[in-house]
Amino acid sequence: MEKVAVLGAGSWGTALAMVLADNGHDVHLWSHRESLADDINRTHKNERYLKGISLPQNIKASSDMGAVVSEVEHIILVVPTKAMREVCGQLVQHLNHKVTITHASKGIEPGSYKRVSEVIAEEIPKKYYHDIVVLSGPSHAEEVSLKHPTTVTVSSEDLDVAATVQDLFINELFRVYTSPDLVGVELGGALKNIIALGAGISDGLGFGDNAKAALITRGLAEIARLGTSMGANPLTFSGLTGIGDLIVTCTSSHSRNWRAGNQLGKGSHLDEVLEEMGMVVEGIRTTKAAYQLSNERGVDMPITAGIYKILFENADPKDVVTQLMTRIRRREMEDLTNILDDQMNN
Amino acid sequence: MEKVAVLGAGSWGTALAMVLADNGHDVHLWSHRESLADDINRTHKNERYLKGISLPQNIKASSDMGAVVSEVEHIILVVPTKAMREVCGQLVQHLNHKVTITHASKGIEPGSYKRVSEVIAEEIPKKYYHDIVVLSGPSHAEEVSLKHPTTVTVSSEDLDVAATVQDLFINELFRVYTSPDLVGVELGGALKNIIALGAGISDGLGFGDNAKAALITRGLAEIARLGTSMGANPLTFSGLTGIGDLIVTCTSSHSRNWRAGNQLGKGSHLDEVLEEMGMVVEGIRTTKAAYQLSNERGVDMPITAGIYKILFENADPKDVVTQLMTRIRRREMEDLTNILDDQMNN
Repeated sequence: MEKVAVLGAGSWGTALAMVLADNGHDVHLWSHRESLADDINRTHKNERYLKGISLPQNIKASSDMGAVVSEVEHIILVVPTKAMREVCGQLVQHLNHKVTITHASKGIEPGSYKRVSEVIAEEIPKKYYHDIVVLSGPSHAEEVSLKHPTTVTVSSEDLDVAATVQDLFINELFRVYTSPDLVGVELGGALKNIIALGAGISDGLGFGDNAKAALITRGLAEIARLGTSMGANPLTFSGLTGIGDLIVTCTSSHSRNWRAGNQLGKGSHLDEVLEEMGMVVEGIRTTKAAYQLSNERGVDMPITAGIYKILFENADPKDVVTQLMTRIRRREMEDLTNILDDQMNN
Repeated sequence: MEKVAVLGAGSWGTALAMVLADNGHDVHLWSHRESLADDINRTHKNERYLKGISLPQNIKASSDMGAVVSEVEHIILVVPTKAMREVCGQLVQHLNHKVTITHASKGIEPGSYKRVSEVIAEEIPKKYYHDIVVLSGPSHAEEVSLKHPTTVTVSSEDLDVAATVQDLFINELFRVYTSPDLVGVELGGALKNIIALGAGISDGLGFGDNAKAALITRGLAEIARLGTSMGANPLTFSGLTGIGDLIVTCTSSHSRNWRAGNQLGKGSHLDEVLEEMGMVVEGIRTTKAAYQLSNERGVDMPITAGIYKILFENADPKDVVTQLMTRIRRREMEDLTNILDDQMNN
């Protein structure tokens, strides 16, 4: 049994805390909202983010970060990517020994194009951690909290450190694999949210499963193209953290990225959608970052560009999706072949 | 405008006939049942297979195969793989000139392990055709008949012949791409039905989207493994006819393979399921063929083996799926990396 700190009491942070508590660990869950921490301790529920779910008694919530992280070996960061720098800045004030930092957030920073582990490494001095690990994969928080079987992947530069995180989380229902491709695992999780927005838009327009499957397939090809240009192994996009996560996000109404896209497809404006959801929609910031990045690097990303135009330039969703569907590309394997060629030549 | 023969008046044959008729061709639809052909001509509907859909007036149905194929350039074969040899045997009696044969059937023959184009080539002498083309992709017949946007791929050994089939079918809503990988396109379409059965079983058991996404991802890896051993390009499994078709089949209640699996997961026996559906479930025969083939070739296919045991050895679906979920594989990319290595060394 270990003392573990989970920073971030949204749906995913809370679900991960439940897995750790089920494994017998002493789990301390941090929220920046004192009232939420108090509610969790009093009711053993997190009604705002995991409605109707009873939490194990060995999860203790607190808004005192210093107390939460004192004497822990493992810190799990599960905050929105937008808040990551600020939370790391607070965290560093409380660290006085080496820990393993795992994050389970999915995004790319607009402007800097940094992955989450890069953001963390910029904010926390190396002397305070063994390594930074990412945990990602097809995993709706609601289902994990209901103990439905789930598989995820952990990855870090030092695979031995990732293996300690695997040991921490793994149980019969929550299967954890390791991957050596940190860049690919982080990018797959981040970029898939763009395609989830697109799948939601297609569904919102009333297009069918055929159109959505085509969009997901072509979307996978273009996020693999960008990811590979950023140093990922293209095969990672065919694994759990790539196509697996993409499928679960694009085909389930649990996904807030899909839900946001669905509202956009039905004619809502971005402001209305965000107000109505009241939760972070990571795909929106990621679309901006990927769009900027693809322009800078000259990577062809027609689906991302189309979604960018819907989100930020008021383009009509129907025009954009129809145009994407009728784009002429006579040899469908052409671009995947290029990825393989590029990789073999590098 | 061309005279085109579509052999097979099930849901997919009828939907493809509609696309051809919309493109202005003179479409002759063959059914082995005279009563169905008569109904189609009288009502301009095919209520048994495409309920509520009105067919274009320029589709003429007939059970007289000789009349249907006389003086056509293009024959489209859309019969169950089980009936393919018999229908080809009939067809060859009526051929007296060279045609292009396109098939849109998805399966592998148990015992012989032949792909559909190989079965056709065995039954019809080469002097009667320019080439054999496969048409495949994520395409529920119901959605095509409702004119939802759809993308498919055509492939043949001679790509110029595939291009003539592309020209025949392509329009604004039915997008047709070409691929040079005939083997991969045929195998992707056939083998995905195994995984669709598995996805249905998982859903029928009440497991969630996380489990299903993991099953689809691991399923894709194992069908790519078998396909590559049979000569397919592994990248084809990441395209429309691989992951695209897999997604549409695994996540939609339109799919009869998914529906059959769903019933099995809920506790029905195979006989009951088949009787209730009253339609061909291609994935069942394909599971048998792939299971036999993987044993002969020593290709590791745990999901296919599990589904085989459920279908043919009365194994308990819950035991099988739970076992698949908890299979230990520490490095998730291992087998995909092996495929790439194999390919690079060949």
